Amino acid sequence: MELSVYSDAHFMKEAYKEALLAFEDNEVPVGAVVVCKNKIIARAHNQTERLSDVTAHAEMIAITSAQNFLGSKYLNECELYVTLEPCVMCAGALYWSQMKKVIIGASDPKQGFLKTGINLLHPKTELVKGIMEKECSGLLVEFFNKLRN
Amino acid sequence: MELSVYSDAHFMKEAYKEALLAFEDNEVPVGAVVVCKNKIIARAHNQTERLSDVTAHAEMIAITSAQNFLGSKYLNECELYVTLEPCVMCAGALYWSQMKKVIIGASDPKQGFLKTGINLLHPKTELVKGIMEKECSGLLVEFFNKLRN
Repeated sequence: MELSVYSDAHFMKEAYKEALLAFEDNEVPVGAVVVCKNKIIARAHNQTERLSDVTAHAEMIAITSAQNFLGSKYLNECELYVTLEPCVMCAGALYWSQMKKVIIGASDPKQGFLKTGINLLHPKTELVKGIMEKECSGLLVEFFNKLRN
Repeated sequence: MELSVYSDAHFMKEAYKEALLAFEDNEVPVGAVVVCKNKIIARAHNQTERLSDVTAHAEMIAITSAQNFLGSKYLNECELYVTLEPCVMCAGALYWSQMKKVIIGASDPKQGFLKTGINLLHPKTELVKGIMEKECSGLLVEFFNKLRN
């Protein structure tokens, strides 16, 4: 089967490439891209260690970057692809940005926003889960195994 | 009664001064300071309009600034004074920072994190509410009245 340029798998693969950059940098490997009208307008990976900043999650950096690109506070015509389920902080940022759609790779039962049982995203935000889940979670497992050894 | 240099009211007044700067800049007037060992190490006010960035809340900027000052991701020896109850995003950031204590001026029943009914802060974080509540909420009321007229 041919992979469409505009499929969820295509864009998640780009988010995954960002997660790989985080991995190589000894950061928890999470990556994100923001897509607007089928074009990637922002790419980011987790940089909490490098910046010594707990707010430097992939999603936060990608949101700020996309806003800069568009010159707009609102991303209601954009999709965020992220390799790991966003935490409460990032879900709150996505709420404020009114992101049109959020596409998640791996679930995060421990720190993901879904554990609150409350829809913290904007009411208009569409949510899709489980795109490239195996690859995205596999990279995290590999990272934490490496940390332990 | 003499005002102690180290009272909650003293530091909230400093956060209020930051909120005034936001007001003058036509931003929703919210200000914050981070205090470490009775010294203000970071000050910030809401800059979402100026930066066209929904993540540029006073608390987020203050947290990043305090982390830069200390060279540490963790603020577990710090207190955050903020003139308005943090939103979900900022509560999530405070969680990651392990802030020792959060002191709030005005409540925010609409967008504040307490509306979730879940303690989104770190289990070790102490929460104090209602310091200079009247002044902090009064400034917000004045701002939104000005916007409407």
